[in-house]
Amino acid sequence: MSLERIFSEIDGQFDRYVTELQEFCRKPSIAAQNLGMEEAAEHLRARMEAAGIQARLIPVPGGFPVVYGEMKGKSDRTLLFYNHYDVQPPEPLELWDSPPFAAEIRGGAIYARGVSDNKGNAMARIQAVEAFLRTRGELPVTVKFVVEGEEEIGSPHLPRFVEENRELLKAEAGIWEAGYKDYQGRPTVSLGVKGICYLELEARGARQDLHSAMATIVPNPAWRLIWALSTFKNEREEILIDGFYDDVVEPTAEELAVLRDLPQDDEVMRRELGIDSFVLGLSGLELKIKHLLKPTCNICGFGSGYTGEGQKTVLPARAMAKVDFRLVPNQDPADIEKKVRAHLHKHGFGDITVRAYSNEHPARTPLNSPIVKVIKESAQLVYGQPPVIYPTMAGSGPMPLFVRDLGIPMASIGVGHSGSANHAPNENIRLEDYRQGIKMIAAVIDGFAR
Amino acid sequence: MSLERIFSEIDGQFDRYVTELQEFCRKPSIAAQNLGMEEAAEHLRARMEAAGIQARLIPVPGGFPVVYGEMKGKSDRTLLFYNHYDVQPPEPLELWDSPPFAAEIRGGAIYARGVSDNKGNAMARIQAVEAFLRTRGELPVTVKFVVEGEEEIGSPHLPRFVEENRELLKAEAGIWEAGYKDYQGRPTVSLGVKGICYLELEARGARQDLHSAMATIVPNPAWRLIWALSTFKNEREEILIDGFYDDVVEPTAEELAVLRDLPQDDEVMRRELGIDSFVLGLSGLELKIKHLLKPTCNICGFGSGYTGEGQKTVLPARAMAKVDFRLVPNQDPADIEKKVRAHLHKHGFGDITVRAYSNEHPARTPLNSPIVKVIKESAQLVYGQPPVIYPTMAGSGPMPLFVRDLGIPMASIGVGHSGSANHAPNENIRLEDYRQGIKMIAAVIDGFAR
Repeated sequence: MSLERIFSEIDGQFDRYVTELQEFCRKPSIAAQNLGMEEAAEHLRARMEAAGIQARLIPVPGGFPVVYGEMKGKSDRTLLFYNHYDVQPPEPLELWDSPPFAAEIRGGAIYARGVSDNKGNAMARIQAVEAFLRTRGELPVTVKFVVEGEEEIGSPHLPRFVEENRELLKAEAGIWEAGYKDYQGRPTVSLGVKGICYLELEARGARQDLHSAMATIVPNPAWRLIWALSTFKNEREEILIDGFYDDVVEPTAEELAVLRDLPQDDEVMRRELGIDSFVLGLSGLELKIKHLLKPTCNICGFGSGYTGEGQKTVLPARAMAKVDFRLVPNQDPADIEKKVRAHLHKHGFGDITVRAYSNEHPARTPLNSPIVKVIKESAQLVYGQPPVIYPTMAGSGPMPLFVRDLGIPMASIGVGHSGSANHAPNENIRLEDYRQGIKMIAAVIDGFAR
Repeated sequence: MSLERIFSEIDGQFDRYVTELQEFCRKPSIAAQNLGMEEAAEHLRARMEAAGIQARLIPVPGGFPVVYGEMKGKSDRTLLFYNHYDVQPPEPLELWDSPPFAAEIRGGAIYARGVSDNKGNAMARIQAVEAFLRTRGELPVTVKFVVEGEEEIGSPHLPRFVEENRELLKAEAGIWEAGYKDYQGRPTVSLGVKGICYLELEARGARQDLHSAMATIVPNPAWRLIWALSTFKNEREEILIDGFYDDVVEPTAEELAVLRDLPQDDEVMRRELGIDSFVLGLSGLELKIKHLLKPTCNICGFGSGYTGEGQKTVLPARAMAKVDFRLVPNQDPADIEKKVRAHLHKHGFGDITVRAYSNEHPARTPLNSPIVKVIKESAQLVYGQPPVIYPTMAGSGPMPLFVRDLGIPMASIGVGHSGSANHAPNENIRLEDYRQGIKMIAAVIDGFAR
């Protein structure tokens, strides 16, 4: 059965879809500030019900509810959608050209906090299902919606939710939260995430900051931390923590081939970033491999002593560094934390305390997974070109809970573009991308059934 | 001629002296905030005139005036007093038990911002001269007063002032701004200061902070700075900058002997500082040598990226460190700055920019200088015990302008005590220390004439 009638339905209803998205975006739902969360969840649940999807809020003890939706199809074969209804805080407000929760349309785009990350995608998927039902009366496959409310604060309760709902969440494949047209307008799909191990290191010296004349005889915690960190990674970008690379799986020939095909203009990127060169002077395929397939050891922050204007002669009492490691299969964040602690002790820095924050596994959906084929074909149909395939994003997220723990291959596609400004002022999506994004979901549902 | 009559005069006038000091302290004179400076200078000038000292304000282009006073004595032999009338800002106000400019007396002490650093000393010296004049009708030697208004902001205009007034400032010896009874009540005298070279180092990465997923390929300025700094000093406290120690003069046998005699309770000091041990586990004479006679390379501050609560995954665009070097004779701060720049280039860190702040030479008045002998004898007379002699302070200051550039041996004595809380809330001096401090100045003038 052709998708023509469904695509016509989407075109015919598109103005309403846009209005619905605006309404959803006008409900601030900021998890970090506990603002409007229940209202947004209920709004989404009602919208699912209106589409004919069985929907309910599943309470999350100590957190915000998951909006869970399910629509049985002709087959039990199941496609799972992961999204989130919480958004980043909109600050700094003065940098927005229209209020972040006004969802103003101008120049063919909707501007709103969360419109790209992730309300546009959540709404597009519901609308695609509705278009299917209104056109054909039923879905060819079963779909499930998991829309959490805590993604922007690190999904603290999602691991337990997934663990407690293994049966409910069963699916043969899934569509992850978002995707973006690249700077040349090509649709992209991402098949994985890196893991992350985020640590805060702290060194302490005297009871309080002292006059720097005391630096002769009183240990300086900033020096301790600098010396310790200088044993973590050298200027050749080699991470020196014992055993750090032990579990790294080398890229497959297929992954390398996909990377080779990735469009990338090193010079444009370099200039946009405002840097003289990439690390180690890398370019081309080597640069792609380094970016997507290699782990990192990064200083997110370092604070000690006086950092204001001018001069203050002080011996700091405390020094703190935040370090994140982005991990690749099969590195384990808990194992990396253990190795960092062991490394510090071994090198005489046992006085430096370590506090662990985020702890997420890496995960990748194999390039030969059937859902990848469905996405390729659907993109050809909707966008008139094959998608650009990223074996993984360079970032992290809760995807491993599904890919690794539940064994569901997940691919991330969506309605954004390279200028969507997620997490930044003037977040936006373009209306035509939104229209195509809805059609893309319909095509994937259809393709998944075949 | 005995000092009995002068000491009696001081005792007889002491209540008035205290009232005068309170009045002076009640005039806030905060150079950093350009608050009350002219009034305080004029107040001091008038007080000098009242004592019979010829006094005037010498304008300082772009700065606050110097109060200059001169009183010819029986001999042309000249003793110069260096003081300052500016004070530190009083914040944080909430930690003061009485308002910082109320100059409240309680428990036998005056509490006020600046009473110890440095108004008590400036006033004591004027009052001592007045007591001399009222008792004997004339001074046995000529005295000169140089009271600047910019000490607490780093004496930016004093080098030029000294250079332009070499003739005016000629003297055979001088008394530096302040001194303190130690924690066992012994008077102390300091004969020198360390130099200082204060540098701000900055590394830059991308145009703006990026998502930490970009740490794979975009240089991280925090890492650059950590790697660079780790080449400055190692864990054995060895400063590794090429040529750093070239001009260091080894301590003399006499200096070591004086250090050996310095009272010091390592354990008490260690506990008060709240540290497990001093650097390199030093104690005793070695600890004194390290503290007073060795140069430092200290991190005063390090700032980069996110340093707030919790987790933020960021690749910083900028990293900054403030580093101060305390220098010993004959290290030259401009030379050290040059060596740091050369070191950075040599080690491949030419991208790190260096901005120089304070730049002061070290200086020491020789232990066998006649003024030291005068102070020893005067202390015996006033305090009934010899002073504790510090060949140098661990800190820095403009003393080298006099000692090094003008060739005037300077010794620092004064009316404070170990709990005077300079630069801190509840700054204070004890009334009995003030009385003795005035007598001490009188005794030094008298001794200097012989």
